[in-house]
Amino acid sequence: MPNNYSKPLTYDNAGVIPANESSGMTGLLKSIKKTFEIRPSALELGYFASVIKIGGGKGIAIATDGVGTKILVAEACEKYDTIGIDCVAMNANDIICVGAEPLSLVDYIAVQEMRDDLLSELGKGLFRGAELANINIPGGEIAQLKEMITGLKPGSGFDLVGTCVGTVDLDKILIGQDIMPGDSIIGIASSGIHSNGLTLARHVLFEKMKLKVTSHQPEFGRSVGEELLEPTAIYVSEAMELLNAGIKIKSFAHITGDGLFNLTRTKAKVGFRITDLPEMMPIFSVIADGGPVEPEEMWRVFNMGIGFCVVVDPADQARALEISSRNQHAQVIGHVIEDPEQHVYIEPQNLVGTPATYFKKIK
Amino acid sequence: MPNNYSKPLTYDNAGVIPANESSGMTGLLKSIKKTFEIRPSALELGYFASVIKIGGGKGIAIATDGVGTKILVAEACEKYDTIGIDCVAMNANDIICVGAEPLSLVDYIAVQEMRDDLLSELGKGLFRGAELANINIPGGEIAQLKEMITGLKPGSGFDLVGTCVGTVDLDKILIGQDIMPGDSIIGIASSGIHSNGLTLARHVLFEKMKLKVTSHQPEFGRSVGEELLEPTAIYVSEAMELLNAGIKIKSFAHITGDGLFNLTRTKAKVGFRITDLPEMMPIFSVIADGGPVEPEEMWRVFNMGIGFCVVVDPADQARALEISSRNQHAQVIGHVIEDPEQHVYIEPQNLVGTPATYFKKIK
Repeated sequence: MPNNYSKPLTYDNAGVIPANESSGMTGLLKSIKKTFEIRPSALELGYFASVIKIGGGKGIAIATDGVGTKILVAEACEKYDTIGIDCVAMNANDIICVGAEPLSLVDYIAVQEMRDDLLSELGKGLFRGAELANINIPGGEIAQLKEMITGLKPGSGFDLVGTCVGTVDLDKILIGQDIMPGDSIIGIASSGIHSNGLTLARHVLFEKMKLKVTSHQPEFGRSVGEELLEPTAIYVSEAMELLNAGIKIKSFAHITGDGLFNLTRTKAKVGFRITDLPEMMPIFSVIADGGPVEPEEMWRVFNMGIGFCVVVDPADQARALEISSRNQHAQVIGHVIEDPEQHVYIEPQNLVGTPATYFKKIK
Repeated sequence: MPNNYSKPLTYDNAGVIPANESSGMTGLLKSIKKTFEIRPSALELGYFASVIKIGGGKGIAIATDGVGTKILVAEACEKYDTIGIDCVAMNANDIICVGAEPLSLVDYIAVQEMRDDLLSELGKGLFRGAELANINIPGGEIAQLKEMITGLKPGSGFDLVGTCVGTVDLDKILIGQDIMPGDSIIGIASSGIHSNGLTLARHVLFEKMKLKVTSHQPEFGRSVGEELLEPTAIYVSEAMELLNAGIKIKSFAHITGDGLFNLTRTKAKVGFRITDLPEMMPIFSVIADGGPVEPEEMWRVFNMGIGFCVVVDPADQARALEISSRNQHAQVIGHVIEDPEQHVYIEPQNLVGTPATYFKKIK
């Protein structure tokens, strides 16, 4: 879709269409749901990870995700040793959200051409990610798909996808079933852009602002490429400690595409009022100004500095905050409200919306 | 690599380089193996599926694989409702090889552009595959990667990958640990080319022989596209019945890339003497003649009519053969021999080789 420079940028005109606006998606979901008649699923679709019952009160949690177009930034920088961390992060952070302990990840690497430099560099990141998530990588697949994969330079294209599994006691599956109005929402800082919204970010930074990955950007204190490649934070150690701290975790939310709307992926139908935000990270203010990209879109597409949320009873807030702050800044960002329509209010930004309507200005 | 028309075709000059000949692969494997220090793996690398210990004597089997360039045939035919079956087959057939029962598959679909027709058609195949493999599909991921995925026509590219999990009692993991010289090898027929060797097949059929997907090919009794798109056979029901039939299964082998060398993915170091082959399927004779492609290469790249092998003690052969024949033709194709170097002899073709040396003419 040609970009209309007279209008603020949205994710749509940067080339990504919300999947739930596709009728093909409806057909696919219908087929997928029909498989639950073959073998029941422990969870409906839409939570951060799926859970498969295996008997003895146990479940396997499973989640699959790729690194997306962060790969194109890695290609432009010719730096491949950290996006394996992103691959682990995107999946392990989803697994912990259903209360499961991540155990293992298998990777799928599709390459345009076999390149000796690429695979061993990807391996370094996968290993580092595995260390941070306390998992192993017991296998994987490499596919040579010359005519299906493309990239920035001839032959340089690749894709990197992971599938993570973990285990959870069925009676401890966490899907926000006990979340209550008044519960506190703790936000743990992201490390930067993570692995979502890169299509829009690249469009703004490289096409609109004409920056290069090597451009030094004063706000970042480093190059644009270095800022974008900052690996996605892995929240496994905090989440596991929180689950074992003797307090009741009401829900976890990995803040990926759709931003804080990820809070609404709960069984209990409640709303979320965000009242206190951390200081805006430079990567997001540079993109917002450079687009320009309206706050409505920024807050839907990016994590905006909050990579992971923990919802607890206010009585457990102090202890939860202490553990949540282990590796990154964490703070209370708001609280749960009664709202069967599941609105998310971002009051400091004057925004309100639901996953179906997206954000609009309040009043 | 430019194709040398004066030489018989190999998979290399059709554009696929054996992964074990890449030094980057060595580096990647080193990193992957190092993750076993973080969390031990129940199995070494190299078997059909990985197994993760989860306590209580139970393991999760996990395997990931894509449909590869069979997708380009689907694109050329504009027929997308069966390759979901291939996606399930490639993974579920691997899971049963370690003695596990497949339970669930998550899919990853990367698209160049959101296309309403594509997703719901892919869903139909995924559902049919799930029925045949008796699994559900509890989740998946759709990624829009306009600049990373390409295809035959503008915007039409996509990739389809699955990860299948199953469960296995740790004391019943099947990795050919008890295989013995004299054991019988049963071969169950493939349904056609399955999902391996499509790069070479397409090169021969479409570039060398100048056929089109719509060309009616007398040997196939249908069009080239229909023949190539024949869904990969799913062997789950036979395999589960064999595991529960009260006979001792020595090993299962899903015959994918590397052909009958897949027999050697056993813990016990033995050789395999293939003495009786089913009649050559037309798809393979047409490719062999059309390349020409030498038998050494044909037998390494393609399943050559045998999609799945079952190794049993000769005393169990009759019962195993009866069950193996439930859905497809099955026959005894040879037997296990003493050979620590794990040669595979294909005597009717006068070929011998190991996974490291590939096939050469005998003497």
